[in-house]
Amino acid sequence: MSRLESFIRRMSAQRDVIDHVRETLPLPATGAILEIGLGNGRTFDHLREKFPGRRIVAFDRAFGAHASSAPPAEDLVLGEIAETAKTFAGTEAALVHADIGTGYEDKDAITLTWLPGIVAQALGAGGIAVSGLPLDHAALEPLPLPASVDRDRYFLYRRRP
Amino acid sequence: MSRLESFIRRMSAQRDVIDHVRETLPLPATGAILEIGLGNGRTFDHLREKFPGRRIVAFDRAFGAHASSAPPAEDLVLGEIAETAKTFAGTEAALVHADIGTGYEDKDAITLTWLPGIVAQALGAGGIAVSGLPLDHAALEPLPLPASVDRDRYFLYRRRP
Repeated sequence: MSRLESFIRRMSAQRDVIDHVRETLPLPATGAILEIGLGNGRTFDHLREKFPGRRIVAFDRAFGAHASSAPPAEDLVLGEIAETAKTFAGTEAALVHADIGTGYEDKDAITLTWLPGIVAQALGAGGIAVSGLPLDHAALEPLPLPASVDRDRYFLYRRRP
Repeated sequence: MSRLESFIRRMSAQRDVIDHVRETLPLPATGAILEIGLGNGRTFDHLREKFPGRRIVAFDRAFGAHASSAPPAEDLVLGEIAETAKTFAGTEAALVHADIGTGYEDKDAITLTWLPGIVAQALGAGGIAVSGLPLDHAALEPLPLPASVDRDRYFLYRRRP
């Protein structure tokens, strides 16, 4: 399978998992959404369409989003994500979406030393995590994926109480 | 429609049009493929899978591809594409793929002042152009899109003799 085909499947999986959360998994009544890896801002745009009225805080190393998908300044956190996202521990976020895989196994292995813990600590009980990398953490219970998504292409968890 | 959804449809259209060319539109027997806008290299990877044995020359302002999708040095042309691609005029390319839209109308309008002419001049007679932006040029005959692709999401042309 070409990398283009694989990419289309990954982005489709991302959309399908987010929509599945919206349609079938009620989020905690309060708490922000954290978008870890703003990038071009396309997923930020999808999240604000699917979860209107919910605060969405976006993290990235540097700002690179399309002007139409720029979060308000107070909801944009720039800098090394491993450092900035830590400051959201205990904030009882309702949903975390993280798509910061690089396609390099060695780089992603480093990300996976800190990402699962940061996600688990930011989420409130019953909060949902959607991720392009697996989040292996005792506090995160894997949930079934929608039927359209291949196992190992995208990941879905609920924060244990 | 969110920008994520629109992006998935655009990338799917890109793949579908390239595959449609591969399956139904014989390319001239000789001539290179030009990939205008290498980016991450995902489409370069798709093109080399679909057109094995064909030289693929990739253009970009700066190198930003994944290591697994890096063209050999002799097939990578870095610098302002408006300048570098001009040097391929008259080389009778078999296929040009260009996906260098930015999502900003004013920037894309500037690209469209030079891109159609450069594509028309690089292609040999009967060569094919696949583009994310419309290529309005007397030498480029619009061809029907595959049924899966919405009009105005991707564009397909044949160089007139």
